[in-house]
Amino acid sequence: MKALRFDGALSLTADAPMPRRAGEDLVQVLCAGICGTDLQIVRGYAGFRGTLGHEFVGRVVESEDHTSIGTRVVGEINVGCNVCPLCLAGDSRHCSDRTVLGIKGRDGAFAEYLSLPNRNLIAIPDSLTDEEAVFVEPLAAACHIREQVDINSATNVAVIGDGRLAQLVIRVLHNAGCNLAMIGKHPAKLKLGMLPGVRTHLLDSASAPSGRLAAGVLASLGGEELDLVIEASGSASGLELALALVRPRGTIVLKSTHHDSAPMDMWQVVVNEISIIGSRCGRFRPAIDLLASGALDLTPLITARMPLDEGIGAFRAAADPASLKVILNIAS
Amino acid sequence: MKALRFDGALSLTADAPMPRRAGEDLVQVLCAGICGTDLQIVRGYAGFRGTLGHEFVGRVVESEDHTSIGTRVVGEINVGCNVCPLCLAGDSRHCSDRTVLGIKGRDGAFAEYLSLPNRNLIAIPDSLTDEEAVFVEPLAAACHIREQVDINSATNVAVIGDGRLAQLVIRVLHNAGCNLAMIGKHPAKLKLGMLPGVRTHLLDSASAPSGRLAAGVLASLGGEELDLVIEASGSASGLELALALVRPRGTIVLKSTHHDSAPMDMWQVVVNEISIIGSRCGRFRPAIDLLASGALDLTPLITARMPLDEGIGAFRAAADPASLKVILNIAS
Repeated sequence: MKALRFDGALSLTADAPMPRRAGEDLVQVLCAGICGTDLQIVRGYAGFRGTLGHEFVGRVVESEDHTSIGTRVVGEINVGCNVCPLCLAGDSRHCSDRTVLGIKGRDGAFAEYLSLPNRNLIAIPDSLTDEEAVFVEPLAAACHIREQVDINSATNVAVIGDGRLAQLVIRVLHNAGCNLAMIGKHPAKLKLGMLPGVRTHLLDSASAPSGRLAAGVLASLGGEELDLVIEASGSASGLELALALVRPRGTIVLKSTHHDSAPMDMWQVVVNEISIIGSRCGRFRPAIDLLASGALDLTPLITARMPLDEGIGAFRAAADPASLKVILNIAS
Repeated sequence: MKALRFDGALSLTADAPMPRRAGEDLVQVLCAGICGTDLQIVRGYAGFRGTLGHEFVGRVVESEDHTSIGTRVVGEINVGCNVCPLCLAGDSRHCSDRTVLGIKGRDGAFAEYLSLPNRNLIAIPDSLTDEEAVFVEPLAAACHIREQVDINSATNVAVIGDGRLAQLVIRVLHNAGCNLAMIGKHPAKLKLGMLPGVRTHLLDSASAPSGRLAAGVLASLGGEELDLVIEASGSASGLELALALVRPRGTIVLKSTHHDSAPMDMWQVVVNEISIIGSRCGRFRPAIDLLASGALDLTPLITARMPLDEGIGAFRAAADPASLKVILNIAS
């Protein structure tokens, strides 16, 4: 089968073996999305080798559960050992022996077929298009913030970043209802975050985070203190800026798996009693429900749709700073 | 009056002006304790100039509230503006215009007299000795952890550090009741943390934090995962070790105001969804109640008692790595 693989370099192959794993379902991939993590893997992050891709929608073609066959599904990407206390408590996302689709120890979704356990697959309603369903995985990561932090209509929140994940985060928080601001370096992408009531601040890409910069950002956003700052820019300077922006006793949620070891003024965290909360994958159900509600229009976030045969070009397109979601159409 | 001041260098003066401030109480200092923050200030932290010291017990000698005169008191060290939303909500500890006794914009307690607003002063029960009362401020900082994090009998907790603050933290958590371990580099100080049921691990002072080191520490402590790690060592490597030790979705409480800008592998925070919580000053009432209950014996933590006249020598003694609390006896 065709697959887009990374083995130190990105390559498209026409004769990858079918990804059959004992006891698991075989899923024909309909379409898949390129994510920031995929780009990082190609830069060497996580040391992954194999077929890339973890955002997908597909159709079950082989399963021990015959009722599943033919079902259109998305899939939780973490596959736990199923016997450790974390897995038994339903949290395979943190199982220390987990494999992760297209990220760790398991071939991914940029291929004609993938393998996942039946328990990882979730049927999606007919009302969702394939393109919408491809957003379930990253949208679940955005929705996860709401399970970690208490957000209400009085909460002042800023999202740092204007890329793929930041755009989903701003939409989820906008839907949650809170006082929202978006801070980014790319005018066109920042504009996409201008949902009704969302204030924005365009950062000079050369400016270094500092107390003075933070004061200017806060003033331009209306002067209110920030209770919560979501760092979704993926840069070390984003975290520094978050520390300078958040109010004493406020919360910073880290959404990006930074690769760099960044110097951090941790004394600020202590003196101002900041909480920093790491946030990775989320449960799929809230994301599916949110999409099915019709509250989000994600079409503006799709930069390009390309066939798997043009996968290498699709990665180039996704790596462009102006780019948002690039979707690979694999089958239909 | 006599005062121990820092103006780029530590000096003892006999003719410091009386610290009278309009509307505030004048307090005769009975005794005071030297804290890690005092040592950091002498190394340049926070840019403070003036009379040092913020851990004290004293007696009110002048007050607009005549009923206060003669009362033996301890004092909340943060003095807020009293008009901002934080102050009005009772949290002067985070007022952006606050002064802090002996730390920021306000002469401190290593002097015959100090000035604080009456609202900052708290009478202490006769049952507490002066030496016990001196511990109220740092003990409040340790008790503050219990207000920030949910701790119960099933919580597995490790304290990194074996110094002044770590010793108070281990006692407060021991009193709270949880599965406790202490990790330190100083055998004699670590021994003081060996309260009934507390496991300890002596770190080789040369070993760098790493996954392998963390696995060894966990194994030596009995192999259970750590839900909560309190970083009270004041070193950047302590935070790195905490990140390597804590379980996925666990919590790290930062108790030390690190001065260094430390390189941090923040991706671990995201992937393992760690919460990092900064923790500084606490409310005095829980600390006074805990001391008054008689549950803690802090006498073993007192390394030396010296008169104010020997203040410079007392700082030298406090800076010795083997040292714990050095108390300045100022009046009796």
